[in-house]
Amino acid sequence: MAKIKLIIDTDPGIDDAMAILAAFNSPEVEIIGLTTIFGNVRTPMATQNAFVLLNLAQQMQVPVAEGSCDQLNGLTKTRVADFVHGAEGFGNTYQQLVEGKKHSLTAAQFIANAASEHPGEVVVLALGPVTNIALAYKVDPQLRTRLKEVVILGGAFQSNGNVNPAAEANILGDPDAADYVMEQGNNVRLVSLDVTHQVEFTSKDMDALHGRGRFGSFISDISKFYIEYYRKSYGVDSCFVHDPTAFAAVFRPDLFTWQAGKVLVLTEGVARGMTIMDHCVRNWAAPHAWSDRPLVQVAVAVQADKVAPMLLERLAM
Amino acid sequence: MAKIKLIIDTDPGIDDAMAILAAFNSPEVEIIGLTTIFGNVRTPMATQNAFVLLNLAQQMQVPVAEGSCDQLNGLTKTRVADFVHGAEGFGNTYQQLVEGKKHSLTAAQFIANAASEHPGEVVVLALGPVTNIALAYKVDPQLRTRLKEVVILGGAFQSNGNVNPAAEANILGDPDAADYVMEQGNNVRLVSLDVTHQVEFTSKDMDALHGRGRFGSFISDISKFYIEYYRKSYGVDSCFVHDPTAFAAVFRPDLFTWQAGKVLVLTEGVARGMTIMDHCVRNWAAPHAWSDRPLVQVAVAVQADKVAPMLLERLAM
Repeated sequence: MAKIKLIIDTDPGIDDAMAILAAFNSPEVEIIGLTTIFGNVRTPMATQNAFVLLNLAQQMQVPVAEGSCDQLNGLTKTRVADFVHGAEGFGNTYQQLVEGKKHSLTAAQFIANAASEHPGEVVVLALGPVTNIALAYKVDPQLRTRLKEVVILGGAFQSNGNVNPAAEANILGDPDAADYVMEQGNNVRLVSLDVTHQVEFTSKDMDALHGRGRFGSFISDISKFYIEYYRKSYGVDSCFVHDPTAFAAVFRPDLFTWQAGKVLVLTEGVARGMTIMDHCVRNWAAPHAWSDRPLVQVAVAVQADKVAPMLLERLAM
Repeated sequence: MAKIKLIIDTDPGIDDAMAILAAFNSPEVEIIGLTTIFGNVRTPMATQNAFVLLNLAQQMQVPVAEGSCDQLNGLTKTRVADFVHGAEGFGNTYQQLVEGKKHSLTAAQFIANAASEHPGEVVVLALGPVTNIALAYKVDPQLRTRLKEVVILGGAFQSNGNVNPAAEANILGDPDAADYVMEQGNNVRLVSLDVTHQVEFTSKDMDALHGRGRFGSFISDISKFYIEYYRKSYGVDSCFVHDPTAFAAVFRPDLFTWQAGKVLVLTEGVARGMTIMDHCVRNWAAPHAWSDRPLVQVAVAVQADKVAPMLLERLAM
């Protein structure tokens, strides 16, 4: 089977690092570019961290296209998740920075170009706020039919958000962009907290990874801070591996249960950033805000007992 | 065991009629009053229909206190659910009206007085928008500690609403009142679509009820229109029995699974009327709009195979 041509849109980020490094150890995909975004860190630091990861993987030839520093509405998001990922995104381990040359195109243009060069072949895995994806749709109106798929880590439907009961961090990072992407909807799959809160690496898993393969020690080191956050927040001795789970959904969708629905993102009010799905199980008496939306696929269940070991294995190679 | 002193706040309504008549056949409760509200019909018609039901049950001595015609914000809700309950609330069967004398107190004052007379003994079962309950809290600041319980039929958490994907009809009938009641929160239990969409009477059940007991034919007749609505909307040959299920929760809470959470109601925007619960399973990094809310009990599961036959039996007596 042909490898999936994968662009990872990312704000590394501890679990971003896990997902990207696992992808480099996955024969099912070919990473044709990293695009960067704010979220866990600010965009320029996300770009720096992307180079750190490429260097670690000895893949410096992979292009890094820097994305937006601002939300779709033009505002700059002031809060980053430093209390989850550390001040520099890698759990305060302060990795040696790596000299890298940014691609000449913006993230949005890079995505649009790649899809134009390889129509029907490119998958975008969006691990942060989806600003770049929304901008790419705006740059190229044909993009929605040219992309093979957009797999988005974001949202919360049956479960609470992780910033507040309504909102998940990636979607809250740019609700306008997320709502715009849900309106485009072609070939969009959503991997939300409903499933990522079921896939965890324990602190024992992370200890065991130390010294294994090319990436084991790095992952083990940076995850200490991350697990500490989950210990304080959820009282667990483990971490949820959101981004790696979304990566697993790219090449092993069979390990998830998918439900088609129409999704809207609240862009205002106390529940700003909330994702609400019309399950489309009934005929409505009157039209409403969801009526004209396209169907997207939402992961409603995951075989966590298969996904977690598979991801660990890829990180130990 | 002492009977539960029950006030039913109601907008009859086909399933309201089922709940009220089942209550008159239930030795566990003593109905000490009906209070009326808009929703399925407008408030004056709800009052008229309450007298029809009392007459049918030969219980004309039970007081009927008329409630608000307007929402808590002073506006009048223009839409009633005539497409679900018929133009007159009883499935277009046009029952003979009954002369009755309204209580001199408003619904809100009646509730406050009853709780003051019987502190810790009165349960309010709210089957419509909760405007009267909110007004009662405002009439008497001590009410929240004096009521034994408020059991509310309303909201949708894991499932879609029934007006649109976000909103359930009762809560959308007066979101400001609902949010206010969630803020008071003392001894509040919520019976939402998550559970009421699991309890149904089939058209066969309704046919079999005809000619049985005091109420069988009446219920059977009025439910035809109601089942027709569900046939068109959900493709089923049955009806969901929301109000009777909430009544069952009053005296058989053991047939439900309850989860404690903090609930907020969206009062503005595209998802106005949506109920959002903080499941309180984690420590939040920062305070949010739910933080200071009291815990309410939300039904998250129901033993439908026990509740539906129990209710049918009570309606056949």
